[in-house]
Amino acid sequence: MLSTMQDFPLTLSWVVKHGMTVHGRTGQVATLTGDGVTVRRASFAEVGRRAAQLAHALRGLGIDGDQRVGTFMWNNQEHLEAYLAVPAMGAVLHPLNIRLPGQQICFTANHAGDEVLLVDATLFQPFSAMLPYLPKVRHIIVVGDFDLSSVDAQGKELHSYADLLEGQPETFDWPELDENSAAAMCYTSGTTGDPKGVVYSHRSVLLHCLGISLGDAIAMGSSDTFLPVVPMFHVLAWGLPHAAFFLGASMVMPDRFLQPEPLVKLVQAERVTLAGAVPSVWGGVLQYLDAHEEADWSSMRDVIVGGSACPRSLMEGFDRHDVRILHAWGMTEMSPIGTVARPPEGVTGDDAWRYRLSQGRLVSFVDGRIVTPEGEVAPWDGETVGELEVRGPWVTSSYFGVEDPDRFHDGWFRTGDVGHLDPDGFLTLTDRAKDVIKSGGEWISSVDLENQLMGHPAVAEASVVGVPDDKWGERPFATVVVHEGQSATPEELREFLSQSSKIARWQLPERWSFIEAVPKTSVGKFDKKVIRQQYAEGVYDVKTLDSPPKTES
Amino acid sequence: MLSTMQDFPLTLSWVVKHGMTVHGRTGQVATLTGDGVTVRRASFAEVGRRAAQLAHALRGLGIDGDQRVGTFMWNNQEHLEAYLAVPAMGAVLHPLNIRLPGQQICFTANHAGDEVLLVDATLFQPFSAMLPYLPKVRHIIVVGDFDLSSVDAQGKELHSYADLLEGQPETFDWPELDENSAAAMCYTSGTTGDPKGVVYSHRSVLLHCLGISLGDAIAMGSSDTFLPVVPMFHVLAWGLPHAAFFLGASMVMPDRFLQPEPLVKLVQAERVTLAGAVPSVWGGVLQYLDAHEEADWSSMRDVIVGGSACPRSLMEGFDRHDVRILHAWGMTEMSPIGTVARPPEGVTGDDAWRYRLSQGRLVSFVDGRIVTPEGEVAPWDGETVGELEVRGPWVTSSYFGVEDPDRFHDGWFRTGDVGHLDPDGFLTLTDRAKDVIKSGGEWISSVDLENQLMGHPAVAEASVVGVPDDKWGERPFATVVVHEGQSATPEELREFLSQSSKIARWQLPERWSFIEAVPKTSVGKFDKKVIRQQYAEGVYDVKTLDSPPKTES
Repeated sequence: MLSTMQDFPLTLSWVVKHGMTVHGRTGQVATLTGDGVTVRRASFAEVGRRAAQLAHALRGLGIDGDQRVGTFMWNNQEHLEAYLAVPAMGAVLHPLNIRLPGQQICFTANHAGDEVLLVDATLFQPFSAMLPYLPKVRHIIVVGDFDLSSVDAQGKELHSYADLLEGQPETFDWPELDENSAAAMCYTSGTTGDPKGVVYSHRSVLLHCLGISLGDAIAMGSSDTFLPVVPMFHVLAWGLPHAAFFLGASMVMPDRFLQPEPLVKLVQAERVTLAGAVPSVWGGVLQYLDAHEEADWSSMRDVIVGGSACPRSLMEGFDRHDVRILHAWGMTEMSPIGTVARPPEGVTGDDAWRYRLSQGRLVSFVDGRIVTPEGEVAPWDGETVGELEVRGPWVTSSYFGVEDPDRFHDGWFRTGDVGHLDPDGFLTLTDRAKDVIKSGGEWISSVDLENQLMGHPAVAEASVVGVPDDKWGERPFATVVVHEGQSATPEELREFLSQSSKIARWQLPERWSFIEAVPKTSVGKFDKKVIRQQYAEGVYDVKTLDSPPKTES
Repeated sequence: MLSTMQDFPLTLSWVVKHGMTVHGRTGQVATLTGDGVTVRRASFAEVGRRAAQLAHALRGLGIDGDQRVGTFMWNNQEHLEAYLAVPAMGAVLHPLNIRLPGQQICFTANHAGDEVLLVDATLFQPFSAMLPYLPKVRHIIVVGDFDLSSVDAQGKELHSYADLLEGQPETFDWPELDENSAAAMCYTSGTTGDPKGVVYSHRSVLLHCLGISLGDAIAMGSSDTFLPVVPMFHVLAWGLPHAAFFLGASMVMPDRFLQPEPLVKLVQAERVTLAGAVPSVWGGVLQYLDAHEEADWSSMRDVIVGGSACPRSLMEGFDRHDVRILHAWGMTEMSPIGTVARPPEGVTGDDAWRYRLSQGRLVSFVDGRIVTPEGEVAPWDGETVGELEVRGPWVTSSYFGVEDPDRFHDGWFRTGDVGHLDPDGFLTLTDRAKDVIKSGGEWISSVDLENQLMGHPAVAEASVVGVPDDKWGERPFATVVVHEGQSATPEELREFLSQSSKIARWQLPERWSFIEAVPKTSVGKFDKKVIRQQYAEGVYDVKTLDSPPKTES
């Protein structure tokens, strides 16, 4: 039996139209133009009109279908205009990660097939070095003042954003699109192998907008003023700018001024209610707030932290300023939000910590399950550990142009994260699946061993990886850096580990090496891939203790 | 370009599964069992298990496809179980309006093709009179204690709900469904002609759940305890029970105890935060609250009023008790919510009234436009009046099994309501389109004339309808009831009307009749259809004044 409902597609032209009409006067975008907290402003109605002008300009450059339009930009008003215009006109938005090495930026632009790039003038200098390596790019649009006459454009056409929009009509006849067609794409940062692309549909972006804006998730609405510190090239800034424009939350854009002082002053001046960034940004902000009693953050309701786990000390630090840190977890493959760590109703004080410090509760349209090493679906008992798999209308089913069947399982996306779910749908992650050590059919958490080791007074850094073992398949190998002037032996450290209630005897490492520094990735994480590779190449001086006791289980 | 997102349908099995897992322990349903505020309780997990049992029981009665399953029930736990089980198993839920005349109830059940009916035991006596007139109904399931042995079932099979569920499995393999397939249907109350059916899809129900739960709409989430006084047979109780189960808001069900005293006590005992009902219910509740200082409604955040316009006096009355009345507007054809009357951020005190008393602001997925008598789309200027047309993913595109092309216009649904939109998307309705009088290509508001006339001290009731006129097409005809012992003449009343700044000279009626009482519908509204018909039949003693002055425009 068919319903009588309208066949009304969920597309981003709807976001543009709703935001620029219903919220056209009350929604505002303020972009920081200097670290002295001067801003330029535009209403949502004006942003919508400029998005229409941008769409006309892009039509003029031959963007008449689902071509990819890349951005190489800070968080600012023009980036938002591209967020709206490019998908709504039927093209595909591809924000490039300006923090990646140039080679990887070029790889993602070329792999996506970007034909037009919008580049902030303040980023043009570093960008220009990549020009020779972007063969598919035909047009480059520079946003902001820049002397284009002096540039060797390497055969591409250079345009000024302002000139291109000048005189264009302020309305655009947004085409009717299939809601399942591509709206935007982002690449994983790819610590292992090349970055992989995820292509968001109009439908997934809109459902994500609604789902994350509900009260149990981010709780965003027209009474909010939202500061995205999270870069707009980072999973569409967690989907928040689209949600904010749709639902009428004003936006404050920091552009390139990402230091604690301008951020703190901007929040105060613009009465920001909601902000989002990775923990490292908030650490600096907290130091600044602690040192400047006069700073007034009374407008701030929630500070959303994602991208990596949030330490309790940071949450406690913001609690002192009456600002609540809200931990959220997600992945590029998940649009990105999967869980938000709000304690259940009525849980406060010390009881709230186990919820606040978890990854959070599954949001309305994300389903999760834990699959044990034996391939069984685990109960939601808050204990049984396995790999987290997810599904839902904003979860990816594949990567763009690359086969990677290992990441998909019976209609579920394998997150590569290991942890457990509790009876109320709260997720706790304990490890990356690739860092779990599979010993004799059982799992050993490398993170547990590392955390324990780093609690030893002599240990500065410790990383544990799985290495091949004839008998057990894999066994833990510990690399340890001791504090200057201190020393330790493998025997001592193994004895220290064995005192932990979290570690079983059979999980204790027998292979040890003392090194100068643990190899790290470009973002400062332990690079376990390198450690495993160097171990295989015999780089380490390995001391091997007795074989572990027989597996207890 | 295709997205890489999962093809994940928006169906009600998702609501069942998400609600009974993530909110399985924290979500609770309490149903009133007596007006002394005794309740029976079930967790969402239990309700979900019972929904699975109901689905198995219905399969056993031959419900294996999209057959219609009707309900004739109060708001209670079992009604919620039917709300979940029937659509999630692929059948179509059809809540019957127990307040309609028996003939119309039978019409809607037969027109929908209901094969199974769930009937509350406390409603079985009045229901049983309809048994001979429901030829398509094969099974009747009685919910609650009732001696079935004494009933003449008229050839239908009678079952007890409890017996039917007993021993059924507590999980159900919910089928994969097309999100555009029918989930539920409701009929308009049909003051003109037969009731007309609207068929909601799984997709429309889910999008409506999300859209109305956002902070700028109803703002419902897991921290709420929701009391639906609005009957579940009334446009799916405004979509709120499905949203509450999905998002984890506990529910308090009043069953048949709808008097102010049990409602007030229930709110206090269960710490209700959110409630919804028509204004007449809240009028009684306010009187009770005013008379009982000891009543504690401190838990209540918002009281949602819909179904008809909410008088300012009622809002002010609840303001005295620190309870905010939130006015919402919608239609059966709109799932139903179209607008919610929250003043924009920062607007408070006296300035807020014009927003609070409007129909409200268009919600995230409802688009509206005003079409003038000349067929032009009006600007959102808060002044230009025309018929409101709406569209969106939860607006109907037709009626079930009936052609009614006049209600649809270029992909928009014609609401039949007349009013204007302001620059921020706030809707103000001034009239029903069918009650507007079309005179010489201009519109005359019958409501304005009536309100003005009823301000005259001698007038008890006054109704104005459009009647045929050779020269102007239509002209107003006023029927007036004077207070006992008082009198008035048409000349006096026309002079009185002409003093109003809202009424132009050319809008003044020339046809007048003094009558004993204005004909009314079953719900107490002026029955203008009857007045027009009686006018045509020459029933009224009409006094005609001079022709109106020439149209000014």
